[in-house]
Amino acid sequence: MESRHRVHAAVVTADAVLVDASRDPELPVWWRSCAKPFQVMPLLRSGGLDALGWESDELALACASHGGEPEHVRIAARMLEQLGLEEGDLACGAHEPLASRGARSLREAGQRPTRLHNNCSGKHAAMLARARQTSVPTVGYQLVDHPVQQDCLRAVAEWAALPVERIGVGVDGCGVSVFALPLANMALAYARLVQAAASGDAPSRRVVSAMTSQPFLVGGTERFDTLLMEACGGNVLCKIGAEGVHTFALVDRGIGFALKVEDGAARAQYPAVLALLAAYDALPDPLPEPLRDLLQRSVRNTRGEAVGVIAVGDADVGDSWEFTA
Amino acid sequence: MESRHRVHAAVVTADAVLVDASRDPELPVWWRSCAKPFQVMPLLRSGGLDALGWESDELALACASHGGEPEHVRIAARMLEQLGLEEGDLACGAHEPLASRGARSLREAGQRPTRLHNNCSGKHAAMLARARQTSVPTVGYQLVDHPVQQDCLRAVAEWAALPVERIGVGVDGCGVSVFALPLANMALAYARLVQAAASGDAPSRRVVSAMTSQPFLVGGTERFDTLLMEACGGNVLCKIGAEGVHTFALVDRGIGFALKVEDGAARAQYPAVLALLAAYDALPDPLPEPLRDLLQRSVRNTRGEAVGVIAVGDADVGDSWEFTA
Repeated sequence: MESRHRVHAAVVTADAVLVDASRDPELPVWWRSCAKPFQVMPLLRSGGLDALGWESDELALACASHGGEPEHVRIAARMLEQLGLEEGDLACGAHEPLASRGARSLREAGQRPTRLHNNCSGKHAAMLARARQTSVPTVGYQLVDHPVQQDCLRAVAEWAALPVERIGVGVDGCGVSVFALPLANMALAYARLVQAAASGDAPSRRVVSAMTSQPFLVGGTERFDTLLMEACGGNVLCKIGAEGVHTFALVDRGIGFALKVEDGAARAQYPAVLALLAAYDALPDPLPEPLRDLLQRSVRNTRGEAVGVIAVGDADVGDSWEFTA
Repeated sequence: MESRHRVHAAVVTADAVLVDASRDPELPVWWRSCAKPFQVMPLLRSGGLDALGWESDELALACASHGGEPEHVRIAARMLEQLGLEEGDLACGAHEPLASRGARSLREAGQRPTRLHNNCSGKHAAMLARARQTSVPTVGYQLVDHPVQQDCLRAVAEWAALPVERIGVGVDGCGVSVFALPLANMALAYARLVQAAASGDAPSRRVVSAMTSQPFLVGGTERFDTLLMEACGGNVLCKIGAEGVHTFALVDRGIGFALKVEDGAARAQYPAVLALLAAYDALPDPLPEPLRDLLQRSVRNTRGEAVGVIAVGDADVGDSWEFTA
C-alpha cells in the first residue's frame, strides 16, 4: 500500500437513528456545498421562488455545484436579469469552470471565466432573490450577519435538528456563510429531506425532484453527482462539497449518509460514496462505466502501464475505508 | 479544523540511531524519486561517469526530479547524444513539465512534451549509460530483472543497511524499479551519504556536491527542493518523491530525515519538511518568502479573502504533525 485516506461516515434514518458508522460519525465538519438544498429553503418555503416564476431549473441550479457550462451560465444570467441585477452583484469570485467541457467552451470562445461560471452562482442568485423578497439590501448579502445568511443558518439548524448555537459558522470558498456540524446531523438532514418529500411536504418534494430529475444542472458533464444521480434514476439524492465532504440519501428509504475524507482528497471521496451505496444495495447493476472505474481505479504511469489501483480497502460499513494508490 | 494530513517521520544519525520520530518511523513506504542519489551510484562508483566525461551537471540531473525546463532538457539530450542514443531509447513516458516555466516554454514554442521533459529523464539517461558501460542490452533496461535495475536495488539495500530481500520492488511512475523500505532506513541512507561525503568518500562527495551546489538542476524554477537547497546554502541535501515522500539530510551534522504524508498530499509535505528542519535549527533566518509562505500558507477563496490556513498543527518532534485547511 502506498497512500491511505481515512474516511469518517454516518448513516442515519429520518427518525435520527444512527444505523451505521465509520470512524467518528460525530466528527464536526464544514458542510460546504452540501448545505445548498437547505440554503434555498427560506426562499422556497416563503413563496419567493414562485413569485419570480422560477421553476425546477432555477431550483436545481440553486442547489448545484455546477460545471460552469453554457447551460448553467445561461440560467444563472437569467435569474439575475429577472431580479434586475447583473453579474457584478454576485458576491462570489470568478473561477475556471469545474467541468472540463465548460472550460473548453470558454477557451474556444477566447473568454475568461466570470462570476457566472462560479460553481455556486445559482445559490448566490437565489440568495439575492431572498434579499429582494425580504426587502433587505442586496449589497453585503454574503456577510455572516446579513439576514439572508441568518435565514440560511436557521434553516440548516432546523433540518439538522441542532440548536443554532451548536453550528459553527465560517466563510466559504464563495464568500457566504459555511456551516460546521457533526456528520450524523448532516446525514439526518438529508434523511429528513427525502422523508419530508415522501410525506408530501411541497418544498422538500420540489428540491428532491429538481435535483434528481435534472442531475446535469446540479453538476455537469462528467461531474460525479450528475453521473451518480443519472445512474440511480431518482433513487439517490447526492451532493458533493469541497475538501472531501459528501452528503446523500436514499430517496425511497429515507436514509441519509454523510462522509468526510479526513485529508480532503476527492480521489478517495468518490469510491467511498459508491462503496457506501453498494453496501445498501443502492447502485444499479451493472454500474455505468465511469462510475465502475471509480470503484477500483487503475493508476497508470507515464508509460501507460497499470502500476497500482485506488480502491476502497474495506467496504464493510462499521469499519473504516482505506484507499490504496 | 477542516482537513487533517497525518505525517510519519524518522530522524536518524549516520550510525543508525533513531533520534526522533513522528507516528510510525518504521512504516514501509515506496521511496519513489528519493532513491535517485543511490540509483546513480553503480555508474558513479565504477568510473562510468568519468569515462563519459560527465561532470556535476549530468550527475545532478541524474539525481533530479526536474522541471522539464530548457536547461534540463538540454543536458538530458546531450547525455543521450554522447551515448549514441536518442529520446526514443528512454523508457520513461512523456508528461507535461513539472515546472510551470517549463510548461510555458513548451507552449510558447507550440511544442508537445517529450520523454526528455519527463522529470526522471536524467536518471534514465544515466541508467542507459550504465547498461552501455556493463555491455548489457539497453533495450529493457527499465525491467525489474535487468542488471541495471538489480544494481540499483543492491545500491539502495547497501546504503539503507538492509538485506536485498527486505526491500519491496515495484514499478515506478517512470517505468523503472521503485523500492519500498522503512522510513528509518531511508533517513539512515541519507545520513550515511552526507557522512560518507564528509569522510572523503569521493562518489558520495560528488553526489552531495552536485545536488547542493546546483539546486536548479535537481528541481527547477519554483520547485520546492530547489528553493530549499538554495536557501540553506549547501547545508541541506533534499529530495522529493511522489505521493508525499521526502528524504533529506543535514550535510554538516550527518543527520538524515525521511517523512511520508500518509495520504500522499504535497500540500502537507512541504510544511512538514520545513517544520522538521526548523526543529533542528537548520533553516536560515529569515527564511526566504516562498518558503516562509509554505510554513503557514493562507487559503484564499474565490473572492480573494483569506478564509483559512494550511499549517503544521504541532511541530514538536516526537509528536505528530497535523495540517489545517
